[in-house]
Amino acid sequence: MSKKKKYTKKFGTPPATLIYTGKFYGDFEIEVSDYDKDEYNEIHTKNIEDCFLKKEEKKTRWINLIGIHDTDSVKKLCDRYNIDPLVIEDILNIHQHPKIEVFEEYIFIVLKMLSYNEITSSIEIEQVSIILGEDYIITFQEKKGDVFDFVRKRIRANEGLIRKKKNDYLLFSLMDSIIDFYFARLEEIEEKLNIIEENLLIKSSPEKEKEIYYIKKNLNIMIKSILHIKDVIALIVNDKPKLIKDSFKYFKDLYDHTIQITDISETLINSANDLFDFYLYMVNNKMNSIMKILTIISTIFIPLTLITGIYGMNFKYMPELQSKYGYPIVLMVMAIISAIMLYIFKKKKWM
Amino acid sequence: MSKKKKYTKKFGTPPATLIYTGKFYGDFEIEVSDYDKDEYNEIHTKNIEDCFLKKEEKKTRWINLIGIHDTDSVKKLCDRYNIDPLVIEDILNIHQHPKIEVFEEYIFIVLKMLSYNEITSSIEIEQVSIILGEDYIITFQEKKGDVFDFVRKRIRANEGLIRKKKNDYLLFSLMDSIIDFYFARLEEIEEKLNIIEENLLIKSSPEKEKEIYYIKKNLNIMIKSILHIKDVIALIVNDKPKLIKDSFKYFKDLYDHTIQITDISETLINSANDLFDFYLYMVNNKMNSIMKILTIISTIFIPLTLITGIYGMNFKYMPELQSKYGYPIVLMVMAIISAIMLYIFKKKKWM
Amino acid sequence: MSKKKKYTKKFGTPPATLIYTGKFYGDFEIEVSDYDKDEYNEIHTKNIEDCFLKKEEKKTRWINLIGIHDTDSVKKLCDRYNIDPLVIEDILNIHQHPKIEVFEEYIFIVLKMLSYNEITSSIEIEQVSIILGEDYIITFQEKKGDVFDFVRKRIRANEGLIRKKKNDYLLFSLMDSIIDFYFARLEEIEEKLNIIEENLLIKSSPEKEKEIYYIKKNLNIMIKSILHIKDVIALIVNDKPKLIKDSFKYFKDLYDHTIQITDISETLINSANDLFDFYLYMVNNKMNSIMKILTIISTIFIPLTLITGIYGMNFKYMPELQSKYGYPIVLMVMAIISAIMLYIFKKKKWM
Amino acid sequence: MSKKKKYTKKFGTPPATLIYTGKFYGDFEIEVSDYDKDEYNEIHTKNIEDCFLKKEEKKTRWINLIGIHDTDSVKKLCDRYNIDPLVIEDILNIHQHPKIEVFEEYIFIVLKMLSYNEITSSIEIEQVSIILGEDYIITFQEKKGDVFDFVRKRIRANEGLIRKKKNDYLLFSLMDSIIDFYFARLEEIEEKLNIIEENLLIKSSPEKEKEIYYIKKNLNIMIKSILHIKDVIALIVNDKPKLIKDSFKYFKDLYDHTIQITDISETLINSANDLFDFYLYMVNNKMNSIMKILTIISTIFIPLTLITGIYGMNFKYMPELQSKYGYPIVLMVMAIISAIMLYIFKKKKWM
Amino acid sequence: MSKKKKYTKKFGTPPATLIYTGKFYGDFEIEVSDYDKDEYNEIHTKNIEDCFLKKEEKKTRWINLIGIHDTDSVKKLCDRYNIDPLVIEDILNIHQHPKIEVFEEYIFIVLKMLSYNEITSSIEIEQVSIILGEDYIITFQEKKGDVFDFVRKRIRANEGLIRKKKNDYLLFSLMDSIIDFYFARLEEIEEKLNIIEENLLIKSSPEKEKEIYYIKKNLNIMIKSILHIKDVIALIVNDKPKLIKDSFKYFKDLYDHTIQITDISETLINSANDLFDFYLYMVNNKMNSIMKILTIISTIFIPLTLITGIYGMNFKYMPELQSKYGYPIVLMVMAIISAIMLYIFKKKKWM
Ligand SMILES: [Mg+2]
Ligand SMILES: [Mg+2]
Ligand SMILES: [Mg+2]
Ligand SMILES: [Mg+2]
Ligand SMILES: [Mg+2]
Ligand SMILES: [Mg+2]
Ligand SMILES: [Mg+2]
Ligand SMILES: [Mg+2]
Ligand SMILES: [Mg+2]
Ligand SMILES: [Mg+2]
Ligand SMILES: [Mg+2]
Ligand SMILES: [Mg+2]
Ligand SMILES: [Mg+2]
Ligand SMILES: [Mg+2]
Ligand SMILES: [Mg+2]
Ligand SMILES: [Mg+2]
Ligand SMILES: [Mg+2]
Ligand SMILES: [Mg+2]
Ligand SMILES: [Mg+2]
Ligand SMILES: [Mg+2]
Ligand SMILES: [Mg+2]
Ligand SMILES: [Mg+2]
Ligand SMILES: [Mg+2]
Ligand SMILES: [Mg+2]
Ligand SMILES: [Mg+2]
Ligand SMILES: [Mg+2]
Ligand SMILES: [Mg+2]
Ligand SMILES: [Mg+2]
Ligand SMILES: [Mg+2]
Ligand SMILES: [Mg+2]
Ligand SMILES: [Mg+2]
Repeated sequence: MSKKKKYTKKFGTPPATLIYTGKFYGDFEIEVSDYDKDEYNEIHTKNIEDCFLKKEEKKTRWINLIGIHDTDSVKKLCDRYNIDPLVIEDILNIHQHPKIEVFEEYIFIVLKMLSYNEITSSIEIEQVSIILGEDYIITFQEKKGDVFDFVRKRIRANEGLIRKKKNDYLLFSLMDSIIDFYFARLEEIEEKLNIIEENLLIKSSPEKEKEIYYIKKNLNIMIKSILHIKDVIALIVNDKPKLIKDSFKYFKDLYDHTIQITDISETLINSANDLFDFYLYMVNNKMNSIMKILTIISTIFIPLTLITGIYGMNFKYMPELQSKYGYPIVLMVMAIISAIMLYIFKKKKWM
Repeated sequence: MSKKKKYTKKFGTPPATLIYTGKFYGDFEIEVSDYDKDEYNEIHTKNIEDCFLKKEEKKTRWINLIGIHDTDSVKKLCDRYNIDPLVIEDILNIHQHPKIEVFEEYIFIVLKMLSYNEITSSIEIEQVSIILGEDYIITFQEKKGDVFDFVRKRIRANEGLIRKKKNDYLLFSLMDSIIDFYFARLEEIEEKLNIIEENLLIKSSPEKEKEIYYIKKNLNIMIKSILHIKDVIALIVNDKPKLIKDSFKYFKDLYDHTIQITDISETLINSANDLFDFYLYMVNNKMNSIMKILTIISTIFIPLTLITGIYGMNFKYMPELQSKYGYPIVLMVMAIISAIMLYIFKKKKWM
Repeated sequence: MSKKKKYTKKFGTPPATLIYTGKFYGDFEIEVSDYDKDEYNEIHTKNIEDCFLKKEEKKTRWINLIGIHDTDSVKKLCDRYNIDPLVIEDILNIHQHPKIEVFEEYIFIVLKMLSYNEITSSIEIEQVSIILGEDYIITFQEKKGDVFDFVRKRIRANEGLIRKKKNDYLLFSLMDSIIDFYFARLEEIEEKLNIIEENLLIKSSPEKEKEIYYIKKNLNIMIKSILHIKDVIALIVNDKPKLIKDSFKYFKDLYDHTIQITDISETLINSANDLFDFYLYMVNNKMNSIMKILTIISTIFIPLTLITGIYGMNFKYMPELQSKYGYPIVLMVMAIISAIMLYIFKKKKWM
Repeated sequence: MSKKKKYTKKFGTPPATLIYTGKFYGDFEIEVSDYDKDEYNEIHTKNIEDCFLKKEEKKTRWINLIGIHDTDSVKKLCDRYNIDPLVIEDILNIHQHPKIEVFEEYIFIVLKMLSYNEITSSIEIEQVSIILGEDYIITFQEKKGDVFDFVRKRIRANEGLIRKKKNDYLLFSLMDSIIDFYFARLEEIEEKLNIIEENLLIKSSPEKEKEIYYIKKNLNIMIKSILHIKDVIALIVNDKPKLIKDSFKYFKDLYDHTIQITDISETLINSANDLFDFYLYMVNNKMNSIMKILTIISTIFIPLTLITGIYGMNFKYMPELQSKYGYPIVLMVMAIISAIMLYIFKKKKWM
Repeated sequence: MSKKKKYTKKFGTPPATLIYTGKFYGDFEIEVSDYDKDEYNEIHTKNIEDCFLKKEEKKTRWINLIGIHDTDSVKKLCDRYNIDPLVIEDILNIHQHPKIEVFEEYIFIVLKMLSYNEITSSIEIEQVSIILGEDYIITFQEKKGDVFDFVRKRIRANEGLIRKKKNDYLLFSLMDSIIDFYFARLEEIEEKLNIIEENLLIKSSPEKEKEIYYIKKNLNIMIKSILHIKDVIALIVNDKPKLIKDSFKYFKDLYDHTIQITDISETLINSANDLFDFYLYMVNNKMNSIMKILTIISTIFIPLTLITGIYGMNFKYMPELQSKYGYPIVLMVMAIISAIMLYIFKKKKWM
């Protein structure tokens, strides 16, 4: 096996082995919100037992768990809700593909969140899992971040429908947030490709070609991810699981978004591929320019140098050398030859 | 996120947020036509309330709304017809893919119109939405233009069937107009590719290669769009929604058009790909021509220059230099060597 | 729009606009044959009304219309047989894809005929439409030609089954003739590719690469066409339309032919693609040969020229110049250096 | 049409035209075997009527017909067994694709046999047709060869199950033999590709590139063929035709073989494609090596030659020429310049 | 046929011919374990009859057979369990594709195990077959190795569920182990590609390109294998064979793994392809650098050498030669020309 374990942290372990396979990003914390159309309560805590406080019956409870490296807390919480150990295992193994599993008492969804690291100029993937029960929803994140911030603000401020509706509408809003990030990443990539496109005929460079390589790599990952997410939403829309109460038209709207994201990604990948090939053409075209200069210089000057070489020979009997017109005539002949060559090159459209 | 918002104008917003995501093209205006086989009335106005005038029962009303940037007017009109807010949102978000949604009281269709900008030499996409009710049809456009002009002229002049039939036939006629524009764009692209094809063996250039790049880009967008439109028409023809009264054979004819457009687009993309690769071959072939000239010149003249260099050396004892035949003999030897080399090159078919 | 109208002749027209979108090939003419197993009558005429002569009941009538540019005649004939105006429109618009439409009283089939123009060395496409009724069959061609000649000869000479069977068997025979032409075109293309293959290692040229480009273009068009024709025959074989009385096993045989044509076309396109790429390799390989010659000449002669240059310098004190062995020693040194270089190149397998 | 008829021998002929479209390989001959678990009889003959001898009831009769160019004999035999004329036509037209047709009284199967011609180093395709009746099986081959030799030996020697079972098991054994030949051809191709792989970094050559071209061509033909054969076996296994009595588990095993052959072929084609592209890279990499040598030689010697040229000028007043240190100093300068250049090239890892 | 038999060891043999088609890896040995939740017994032996010892009724028996070259032992064991001869044949023919066959009394599964050979740096494939009966499971391996070691350790140590559950859970655990190895191989490949990626702009080399070639080859084999394994698990999950008692949720988890492996493999193959093409670009880009140096040197020095050649001519009357300023002026002119050329190259961004 390799030195750094990425996919093999769980090599040889039995099922339901609860190992977190991601990186450490920061302290563990939880946000618990209970709400209905009239009230809203929110607590922040590092203590998992605080999630177990009794919830008023009609309210929707949203538990947002940040930092799944704390596997004990994750397990405690999930055990409380009778979550199958294989599901807990999947929450902690961040190499899942986006998927949905419908159980009797809850629905388990895995999604991938794409954020942009301004420093490294690269896309980072975070696994976000969601468990939707009858009247609660639990979200699991690897690291702190603004994924669900817009949603939380709307809940607090009682904006729109979110406080009037149940946890299935909240699920939709959270998934909608995650999908918004795909649009954001595509926007960045499209801008980068536009810049490369505009500068197409200007000097190509290995640095730009390398940029295109990474753009293609990110687009491929994005397409794989969004196709799985499309399947997740398709299952919700077609199978109509009981726990998704009545927000199906919103999930249909989300499904439209996945089609748009797929279309844009495929269009951008086509462009990236064509730009990559275009550079190969430009590099060869540039070589022709360089070769033309070398050939023009050589074709003009090497024959002239032969002439000077002839008259630089030391034969005792070289009549032309005696004439006082010899030198000017030779210079003139050389000038005429140059002119003829330049004319031929101009006619061949080399210059 | 990126500096210019293209896909992220609605980032983090809740559903049914009515934001127009396109550009501003010109003033808002509406055309309302009421007609049946005997009568035809038409008004132009900037005032949305003018659409609410009572319509005679048996007539077909066509409301053509230009400039959906005026979101208030769009909302007022749609509310009047009880259009779902998610539909209004889609009308205003011009990043939809062509689609159809069948509701109880109306059908909602999104299409993409492709026009040609002569100045920039590029294809521009405009989103056109249509709502078909029992006896009315509303069209939403981003900008003024001649999309539906032919249809309007036929209605005014009472040409053909359009005044004798109901709003489903009008829907067909409008979609037929939009699809005609795909044929027009393909015709332009095919002409450009024909020119490039005819000049294939003449000097290739980065400018032409760039032209092929943009042709491929436009064709890819066109294919994605027409495949979605094909699905829209397939749903109409197969599911036979009630609101499409009896014009199914016309929609079948439209479906044929989408197959023809798909065929032509795929054929042109194959050509564009092959022409792009052909240029890479030509650039390398050209390099060979340049290299041959350089090699011929060097192979002939560099050895001759060595000979002149030998006899230009200043050794005290170089017997050949004394002979009065030395110079002419050397010149002759050089001429013979040149002739032999030229013969070899001719035999190698280099010249 | 573009200057030459190809796909936009019918831009903005309503459905059932009877415009011929092809070229003018020659005068309009009709051949009408009535036959059964005992009798055979045939007339040639330019007058469409001659088709309306009463037909004996049990006989099969075959009306072969050449020159659909005469839209009036086409319309008159079709009206006589109650053909839907959208069908007449399709007969005249030669940009259809091969298709089949089954009506109550007749079946409408569109096919593409591929002929070879010896002068331009290119494949030409002609649209052939067929209407099959209860006891008649009408064929519509753009231009005169030998498409159905073999069939007509068999009918006249009462060869085989054709006179004993009904119009569905005649339909099969006509479609069989058209499909034979695909085999003929593939045979030509395969011969051209074989020649290119045999000469693979001989000098490649832009002219040959261009030939491969056109071969690929024709094969792509052929594949699209035969795939549609395969769908047409599949519908006949699977749906068993009533008007195809009992010739289903013959259509199954035709279906086999479309599979063979598809296989051969795909094999040839693979070859064409690989030959195209092979030329790119050959062009680069040729460049290596050219570069080797240039490098061998330069590597041998330029250092020797430096030696002659050293001894051509005019320093007052250059002891070697005084020796009477100087010259021969220098020549020998130069010869040895050349020999060593040639040996190194031979070892590097450059020569 | 082209000069050599390959696909057009039957151009314009009616169905059931019995023309052999292959080449002449040798004399016509038949082998007829009757057997059951106890007895085995075998005759060789050139006379088709010998096949019509009465067969004992319980025995299996295998008629092996070699040389289908003798169309009369083929027809006589098939008429005897009431074989449909369209089937006889297919037996004689060797451009079929592998297929199966199930009739009431018999099953008709077409297969392709791939043999290796050691002399031309190429794969040759032979069409083998099989008719399976209630108690007989007829095989039709184009040429003599050892296709079914192993099977015949087992029947004669009463090895294994073959004499104990009926003609469906014999059909399986014959098809198994044919499929074995696909493994044999793949083994040869894999060896050739392994050799090319091992020598990847050694000098590439147009001859090797050409070899890869033909390997790809053969693999493509093989894949098309085995995919059709896979469909044939799939029909037998899924539809369970009556005439295949009870050997379905053997045909399932054959189906496994077709999947293995498809897997190996696709793997080899991927390798062949990558090796082909690798050569393009190697050719360019080789060019770099050649260019480096040329550039090193030129960059070192051309400036030194300029120095000798300067001191070879004939100006009257060139002070350096008078010094007795002039010459050694110039030589030293030239040596230092060379050393610096060599050092720079070494640092650039050019050498 | 070829010299080394790989796929043709069984050429021409009848079905159920028991020939081992792999290599010899070491001595034959068997491990037999009987266990339930309370007890665990294990024996090691080279004697196949030791497997026939009576098993206590409720216990699960796992027979692990290493070294299937001993075909007699394999046959004896399989006959004891009434395994169909065609299955025994498949166990011994190591060219199977992963598959599952469900019989009345047992299920037969073929899998491919991928191990990594550190010495040759390559992936090695081993075929592992499994027979699952009512209360026993037999595994067949080609060579000794640690495939199932983790599982055995858990059984011995009574860790987790394995001793509490039946042989279907053991089957799942064994398949889980095999699939873990795919993750391990992907991890190695991903590391190799990461290193190549990081060094993209540094000197490319044929050795690295060759490494990418082999990476692609291994990934293609891996993808084919895992797709077949995905089908095997899909059959278990969908068809729910009786012999898989109640461990379906574990097989669903395994199915997720195959999707993840497919995703990672496809992502890595895309990267490998793009890196391969990137090298072609880099090789051409490097050539440009080399050509620029050659062209700069030639363009500066060849014209200067012409000047020295002119003034090295021996014409009697060359006035400039007499002037005492001649030499310094010529040197200055040459310096100015060099400076101008260098400036032009700098402006062209060549340096
Ligand atoms: Mg697991
Ligand atoms: Mg899992
Ligand atoms: Mg994924
Ligand atoms: Mg999925
Ligand atoms: Mg949103
Ligand atoms: Mg590419
Ligand atoms: Mg939305
Ligand atoms: Mg929407
Ligand atoms: Mg779209
Ligand atoms: Mg759609
Ligand atoms: Mg139209
Ligand atoms: Mg390409
Ligand atoms: Mg390519
Ligand atoms: Mg139309
Ligand atoms: Mg039409
Ligand atoms: Mg077509
Ligand atoms: Mg069709
Ligand atoms: Mg025919
Ligand atoms: Mg290509
Ligand atoms: Mg036929
Ligand atoms: Mg046939
Ligand atoms: Mg075939
Ligand atoms: Mg076999
Ligand atoms: Mg088939
Ligand atoms: Mg390729
Ligand atoms: Mg077998
Ligand atoms: Mg088998
Ligand atoms: Mg496999
Ligand atoms: Mg595991
Ligand atoms: Mg399988
Ligand atoms: Mg590639």
